[in-house]
Parts: sequence; C-alpha cells; structure tokens
Amino acid sequence: MAEKQKGKNSIEIISGLGKNLYAQISSGENPYFDLPTRGLANVKYSEEKRILTMGSGLSRRYFLNVGHVRKFVQTVAMAALSKELIESGKHTSLRSAFYQIRRTIPGTKIDVVDDQSETNKAIEDLELITDLTREQLHINANKAGAVAGNVIVEDRGDVIDWSKMGSGGWAIPSNVEDLSFKKIDAKFVIYMEKQTIWDRMNEDKAWKKLNCIIIASQGQATRGIRRLLQRLSREHNLPVYILTDGDIWGVYIYSTIKFGSITLASASDKLALPEAKFMGLTMDDIEKYDLKRHLIKFKDVDVSRLNQIKNYEWFKKSKRWMEELGKMEKLGAKVELDAFTAKGLSFMTEHYLPEKLREKDFLD
Amino acid sequence: MAEKQKGKNSIEIISGLGKNLYAQISSGENPYFDLPTRGLANVKYSEEKRILTMGSGLSRRYFLNVGHVRKFVQTVAMAALSKELIESGKHTSLRSAFYQIRRTIPGTKIDVVDDQSETNKAIEDLELITDLTREQLHINANKAGAVAGNVIVEDRGDVIDWSKMGSGGWAIPSNVEDLSFKKIDAKFVIYMEKQTIWDRMNEDKAWKKLNCIIIASQGQATRGIRRLLQRLSREHNLPVYILTDGDIWGVYIYSTIKFGSITLASASDKLALPEAKFMGLTMDDIEKYDLKRHLIKFKDVDVSRLNQIKNYEWFKKSKRWMEELGKMEKLGAKVELDAFTAKGLSFMTEHYLPEKLREKDFLD
Repeated sequence: MAEKQKGKNSIEIISGLGKNLYAQISSGENPYFDLPTRGLANVKYSEEKRILTMGSGLSRRYFLNVGHVRKFVQTVAMAALSKELIESGKHTSLRSAFYQIRRTIPGTKIDVVDDQSETNKAIEDLELITDLTREQLHINANKAGAVAGNVIVEDRGDVIDWSKMGSGGWAIPSNVEDLSFKKIDAKFVIYMEKQTIWDRMNEDKAWKKLNCIIIASQGQATRGIRRLLQRLSREHNLPVYILTDGDIWGVYIYSTIKFGSITLASASDKLALPEAKFMGLTMDDIEKYDLKRHLIKFKDVDVSRLNQIKNYEWFKKSKRWMEELGKMEKLGAKVELDAFTAKGLSFMTEHYLPEKLREKDFLD
Repeated sequence: MAEKQKGKNSIEIISGLGKNLYAQISSGENPYFDLPTRGLANVKYSEEKRILTMGSGLSRRYFLNVGHVRKFVQTVAMAALSKELIESGKHTSLRSAFYQIRRTIPGTKIDVVDDQSETNKAIEDLELITDLTREQLHINANKAGAVAGNVIVEDRGDVIDWSKMGSGGWAIPSNVEDLSFKKIDAKFVIYMEKQTIWDRMNEDKAWKKLNCIIIASQGQATRGIRRLLQRLSREHNLPVYILTDGDIWGVYIYSTIKFGSITLASASDKLALPEAKFMGLTMDDIEKYDLKRHLIKFKDVDVSRLNQIKNYEWFKKSKRWMEELGKMEKLGAKVELDAFTAKGLSFMTEHYLPEKLREKDFLD
C-alpha cells in the first residue's frame, strides 16, 4: 500500500501548510509562508549529485501585503484543491485546475485567477513549498509516448504486459507515480526522440532481440516519461540510454533527461537522471557509418542553441562532451537517425545499436 | 488471411504500373502514366456520398519531358520502394522513405531527390495512381493518441484488451490496416481532441459506465485514428461522436473527420466518415450549462478560420450548422470542455455526456 502511504504523506504535508497558516492567524500574526526563490540566479549545478538544483535563496510571501496577497491566495486555493484531489483519488489537468480555482471573491468583483499562467505559477509555488511534485499533487499534463519490452506492470488494478502490445505499445500516462512493476526481464532502457524510429524498432522486435525496453515520445520527454525512466533506473538498476539525431537538439533532450531543466530545477530530484548515457548519433558516427552524404547544414537556430549548450556548466565539466560539441560546431551540420534507413530498414537495429552496446560507446 | 490478400492486391497494383511502363518502353512509346489533377480546382464535395472527392481532371506525366522527368523518376522509385516494403512485410516512415530513395544517378551528379517535400509528393502521386493509401503502401507517419473500451483486438499476433490498459490506454498505431477486432462490447465511439479530457474520462471509467470506446489524440486526429474510427463505424456499425471545445477549431476537427480534408480529398473514401456526429460543445450548451462565465474572446485567427469554414459548401448545405456558426460569430467567443470541471471534476462524465446521449442532441 505504498500508494496510500504516499497519499497520506502528501495530505499531511498540505494539511501542515494549512495548520501553520491557521496558527499564524490565531496568534494575530500576518500569515506567511516561505518558498525558494525562483529564476536562474537561484539555480545551481550540483557537482556531487550531477543535477541542477535550487539554491538556498528563500522568499517570504505575506497575506497582508498588497504585492503578495494575490499570489498568496492563489497558492492557498491550489493547496485546497490538491488536498481535495488526493482525498478523492482523482486527478486533474493544468487547464482544468485553472477552471476549478476560478471564482469571484464574494462581495467583490475580483476573481481569484484571471489566466492559466497564474494557476500554473501557483502550482509551481506549491511544489516548491511542499517539495511534492505536480504529479503527487494530482495535477497532470498531456501524456505522450509509447513503451514496449519484456515488462509486466500493474496500473489502476490492470495487469499490463508491455511485450504484448502489437504495433501500438502501451500509451505512457502523464503520471506514473502509482504504477507498480510486477516483472522486468530487460537489461537496459532506450529512450528515443522519434515515434517513427520506435515504430521501426518495435516492428523489428528490437526490444526482444536486444533484451531491452524501448520508449519514445516526440522531441522532449514528458515528465511522465522522465519519471518512468528514473523509476526503471533507480528501482531496477537498469541503465538508460538516450538515442537521438546527431544534432544539438538531441544533446538538449539528453541534457534535460540527465541533469534536469533550468525551469524545473526544483523537481530535479524526482525527474533528473544523472545515470543516463547518450548513445548517439555522435559526430564520430558520421564517419564510422559513412553518413556524410546525409548531412544537413545548420540553421541559425541550431548555431545559437549550440552556443548556449556549450556554455552550460554541466557540459563544460566534461572534456569528452566539449570535444563532441566542438566537432559539431566545426562540422556545422547535423545528421538524422532516419539516415540509417538508406543502408537498409533494419540497419539501426541490426548493426548500429548492437555495436554501440558491444563497444560501450556512450557519452556520459 | 485478409491481410495477405490485401498485400497481394497492393503488389499486383504496383506491379501493374511497372508492367505498363515496361510495355510502353518495349513498343517504343514515351513512357507515361495518368494521375488525377491535384489542387483545389479538382476537389469536389459529393452530395451523394457527403464527402470531399477528387474531380475527374487527369494529367499525364511523361518520362521524356524535361518538365516531367524528375517527378516521373521519383514516383517510379517510390513505387519500387513500396513494392519492396510490402513484400518484406516492413513499414517505413515519411522521413525514412526520403533517405531510402535518395541516391545519385550513376554517371551524373544528379540526385533522385534533394528534399523530403519531393518524396512526400511522390507518395501522394503514387496514392493517386494506385488508389492505395499511404498506409497500404507501407509508409507511416507519427503515431499519436490512446484508446480504451470493452474491446479486444489482435495486432501483430498480440491479443490486446482495451479494457485493461490502466491509466495509459493502448497507443494507437499510425497504421491500423492489419488490426483485427476479436470482441466489441460497446454501443458507440467518442473521439475527443484533448488527451487530458480522455485521462479524466478514463479515470472515471466513463467508457465502462456509458458502454463506449473513448479515443483521443491532441488536436486533429491522425490518419491512424481516422481509419480506426472508420473501421469501427463501417465494420461494426458503431456511431461515432466528436467531442470538442465550443470553438471553430473543434468544428474544423469534426469537418476533417467527417468530410475529409481538402489536401487529402483523394483518400476520403478510406478516411472520411460522413456518419460522424458532433456532440458539442455547442453554442446552446453555453446557456444550458451556464458556462458564460468561462467565455474566451475570439482572436483574429478564430475569426478568419470561422469565415473560411462558413463558406465550406458542406456546411452551407446544413441549415442547422449555419445557425450554429452564426451564433458562434455573434458571440465572438469560445468555451472549452475543461470549463465543466468548474462544476465538479466528473460533471462531464456524469451529466453532460449522458444528457447529450439521452436527448440525441447531436449536430450532423
């Protein structure tokens, strides 16, 4: 009953926030709560943990303060909604949470919220205050992505076999907190940024041949996928490999999964995966697999993203990554995973991936 | 073995194209093929079928014609690739098809294709010439979306129970041609444009309570979903209802599913679903369910899309739809399905949907 326990803890944490405010009011104090300062200035790269974390900056938010009161009320309203959601066992979405909070304060013409950007911020604040993730607060986002592999899970009372999902796969929920793993027969996990690559690998039953789990969304991994990768890594010791195009956007996807994102640094502990490794495409692979013919010249957006990532502290610490980014800059071009199909539809499954794994040719 | 038969037929059709060209060459003719003229001028609304169809305009493409030869070669190369794919039982993606076709013509510096837009067009041409869909040609696009309901299907040898998919659902493949239905215990299908609404309905087990199948992607339905809706309707006589926000984009999604799209008019027979009905949100629902408080003012893009759709022949034929679009224009605002959550998280499942179904309050 880990789920119930977790629910209970979340409730206790949220109730604690309410009780604290109540005590402040009872003693005639101006009600307040503290929360970590947001923004880049308070985001730090932790060399020890190898993830992005929040610094120690705190800001105090008061009820009786003209500049604070609106946000104060929104955050408390969101806490009340979350408590209700957790107690009822139901989940809402970011958009619906906005409608659920929206109301006019009696006797006034003032609405608690006017725009979803306000509830989104209130949810982020509540995450910071309670150290619970949005998912633990029962607020979900859009889901995306599919998974296949020799794994059996239980979710909402259903037993789901990821090896028997045909051409579709199991659709990965936006919230995997309550998922339990019943059986895992896999040696590692591959996350890829393209559904069509996943389709190809699934059609080849690559997950069976390589004895692994294959996961894809489209572009950046959703939070649901990041948590799933993290749980497979932490709870079941499975190495996680990131398979992307040979371009700066692939590196960016890898960076977010591995170190966390700047905007969600507070959630790094629950989302980041410093153990994740990059399995290409690398710039050396272009030579090795004779893909020069398929280079696509950088556009301005590629160059500016590359310059940005080159300056990320967590890449600067890695000699190997700085070499890779240097090669990419020098080449001024990218290459897509899809280019492997020029060598045969199953080239990636039958040659590239087995070779990467055999040679342990990963960037870390 | 319907699948094998279908494969065989596709091969026969593609081989026929090749044999025809070969015969032309043997008899000293300038090789050519005919294909329906593309573009708006050759798209017609068929009142009888209630779908968009291609007109009778034909254009002839010659090999020995400086203006035609490049497209001619690309289309023939694509036909050869499709034949190979069908014979091997493998599928490729739009992007990979580009890499598979791409090569330099020996003894020249000319590439068969320079850009994916060329292979995309060659695929569309091949669809027009052969009257096979892209999916039947074994070329897929990105998949998206999830499904749940009391249905058991077989896909690639796996038996998949859509009622036992937990919070995720079965990920809908981009290609559902080879899917077979083993058991269907459902009275109708609801397609919705939002994953988060689907999540909410799935959490409430709405598909069980209402005895239906629920399907969602994000925004416009993928071709895989449109074919799935069509197959459930045609092969199993299930009514299909489209559930969208009360705005012009919802109407647009409905229009594409029901009548087909202008750019894919040639595929209407295999994708359009004239039996589909719109289950809201309607402008009258705003009054009925007291949603006025949640109106969101139109932006310029909403207005221009509304003006465009108002002039679609297929809407002009419907008095009821012209009234609806008139009301929308007068209101100058939209309302989202998510707004129902202001009345309680399960309001849509417990009130709105049962009432719509009981009163048969659909737009057609």
